[in-house]
Amino acid sequence: MNLKSRIREIPDFPKKGILFYDITTLLADAEAFNTVLTRLATPFEGQAIQKVVAVESRGFIFGAPVAQRLHAGFVPVRKPGKLPYKTIDETYQLEYGAGTLCIHEDAISAGERVLIVDDLLATGGTTAATVNLIRKLGGVIVGLALVIELSFLKGREKLPAIPIVSLLTYD
Amino acid sequence: MNLKSRIREIPDFPKKGILFYDITTLLADAEAFNTVLTRLATPFEGQAIQKVVAVESRGFIFGAPVAQRLHAGFVPVRKPGKLPYKTIDETYQLEYGAGTLCIHEDAISAGERVLIVDDLLATGGTTAATVNLIRKLGGVIVGLALVIELSFLKGREKLPAIPIVSLLTYD
Repeated sequence: MNLKSRIREIPDFPKKGILFYDITTLLADAEAFNTVLTRLATPFEGQAIQKVVAVESRGFIFGAPVAQRLHAGFVPVRKPGKLPYKTIDETYQLEYGAGTLCIHEDAISAGERVLIVDDLLATGGTTAATVNLIRKLGGVIVGLALVIELSFLKGREKLPAIPIVSLLTYD
Repeated sequence: MNLKSRIREIPDFPKKGILFYDITTLLADAEAFNTVLTRLATPFEGQAIQKVVAVESRGFIFGAPVAQRLHAGFVPVRKPGKLPYKTIDETYQLEYGAGTLCIHEDAISAGERVLIVDDLLATGGTTAATVNLIRKLGGVIVGLALVIELSFLKGREKLPAIPIVSLLTYD
């Protein structure tokens, strides 16, 4: 299946000069969505993944079903003020200013084997922050499974030594 | 399985006097999460659901896997500025002020059979807005599948004639 044909390209979103890859057309197609989930999960079968971590909001759409396919628990990483229990936080740089991501302090136990799932790897800032949150809790990051990688933004350089599976690469 | 035992109760979140039902402890338990998804999807098997609609962010965690189980497409409803293509919008009342939800105008075709999935039914404002968005696009709402219903807030009264499956009810 040609998954790129299921992605809608939208110029000038969220601002002029950015070409946005819209996954909603893929999600609307149950068979294409199923293919994506299979390709995200399959490389990590048999690797004893215990927790799948995803960042809100679009990451949840892929992370939750992948967690189920791997018989792993699902852990949401969220923006400040959204998680109700005690959290640890990580701040990262944005193009202008900074962002913060949070995880429940009991979401991952020391030594647990973790897969990160996300829809998109761009500059890698949110993913690197997620990596730091997981490591602060003692989690072992087994890999990162991505739907789309914008390789020209070199996000991988922020994620040394993490095995990465990306389904669609845009140069 | 006693699902209520998997929900963590957090007093005074997001503000004093509110008892918050934290689903992250349930999500971290792959078997409990699987049971929830089975109970959400099973009543709608054989009902020819074509699209599952969920509201960001927690709704995505349940809606996406339920869509896969029903072999239906997944449609996200989001806050303003998040969906990249042309949207239709619906404004609803909050306790203080108003909120707005958006859906892509091509997300649902006239006559398509739609299931709404959400983590929580409280006052019903966001769910009623979602119902209006789906109906504006001509969708046929087959039902609403919920993890938690706060029945004392009477959200059902805003959703007449919609079959509702709720797994956990708190009076």
